[in-house]
Amino acid sequence: MKRKGIIIVVSGFSGAGKGTLMKELIRKYDNYALSVSATTRDPRPGEENGREYFFVSNEEFEKLIKENGLIEHAGYVNHYYGTPRKFVEDKLSQGIDVILEIEIQGALQIKEQYPDAVLLFVMPPSATELKNRLVGRGTETEEVIAQRLSRAKEESVGIEKYDYIVINDDLGQCVDKVHQIIDAAHYSPLRNLDFIDTIRKQLNEI
Amino acid sequence: MKRKGIIIVVSGFSGAGKGTLMKELIRKYDNYALSVSATTRDPRPGEENGREYFFVSNEEFEKLIKENGLIEHAGYVNHYYGTPRKFVEDKLSQGIDVILEIEIQGALQIKEQYPDAVLLFVMPPSATELKNRLVGRGTETEEVIAQRLSRAKEESVGIEKYDYIVINDDLGQCVDKVHQIIDAAHYSPLRNLDFIDTIRKQLNEI
Repeated sequence: MKRKGIIIVVSGFSGAGKGTLMKELIRKYDNYALSVSATTRDPRPGEENGREYFFVSNEEFEKLIKENGLIEHAGYVNHYYGTPRKFVEDKLSQGIDVILEIEIQGALQIKEQYPDAVLLFVMPPSATELKNRLVGRGTETEEVIAQRLSRAKEESVGIEKYDYIVINDDLGQCVDKVHQIIDAAHYSPLRNLDFIDTIRKQLNEI
Repeated sequence: MKRKGIIIVVSGFSGAGKGTLMKELIRKYDNYALSVSATTRDPRPGEENGREYFFVSNEEFEKLIKENGLIEHAGYVNHYYGTPRKFVEDKLSQGIDVILEIEIQGALQIKEQYPDAVLLFVMPPSATELKNRLVGRGTETEEVIAQRLSRAKEESVGIEKYDYIVINDDLGQCVDKVHQIIDAAHYSPLRNLDFIDTIRKQLNEI
């Protein structure tokens, strides 16, 4: 059974720790590549072009849209965010699973184009824990924390559209679980149509 | 996240080794129970009532159907086969995953009543290997082998209705893979509606 690369879309509440989780997943296991989004927002201190994001102008972004160079894009707080197609398709064709960290709007766009994409939602163990983490960062104002919790409320409406949810309690355990879930997803018939087709042909020839 | 027991329906071509696979799964891992079907066919030499099957009369079987005592049933070569409801529901309520070895007809009946059931299809590595295994048993006539291969052809039509396919090449590896796939399935939103509901309520109260 030849293993096909699949797209893994990872979403989750702000503060659920999905960024750290994905970095650790890629460090610990081979066979994953992290997609870097394009955005029109300005880089924040410490951010590097091509690492956190590809920072592009409005004009460049709109050109990408027009040329079908993005597999999904969305507007968020006056800026564009999108996933460049070339990187994703190159990796998939090499049998590598590509991880996209995007919001539900983009996740559903992806699922429409790539029905075999796996949608994963990262949850905190509880809402209280989520709040504690946001407060604990010490970098956010009370207003921002309130905004994020309110956004979490909105996002929680879409959870049933995801294929899997994972609870990020212990980082190491959660990374292993995510890897295991993605590996299991490779065994769906939808992701092995070629193999099924081969067996059917063989049965007809026997 | 409280783990709910789920139904695992296992189907597969005759000769794919699903019986051995399930026995080994239950021996190696806790948290699984194998459902024993009721049937109206006669016991074969070596079969024990309550182990391979519950052997019942036509009258008893029809009473079970009438009393809604079966979660699925089907007729096959002039005999009834069905899954007693009580055993399944008792185990599920204890958080134990229940394994049913049934054919596609029953599998789809189950999925309708228990949308969170996991349907697993066991495949041989190739159709040639399937034929070799059937011939290798040395217990089947050429006619029976031809019948089974022809039945495999029919069954292969429904593979896409299953959630997962596994290839039974190396028994030990396949057992571990099946366990991993079932474990991963526990992380779908559908199987964690209570947890999602709790998080939503908490977010509204914060």
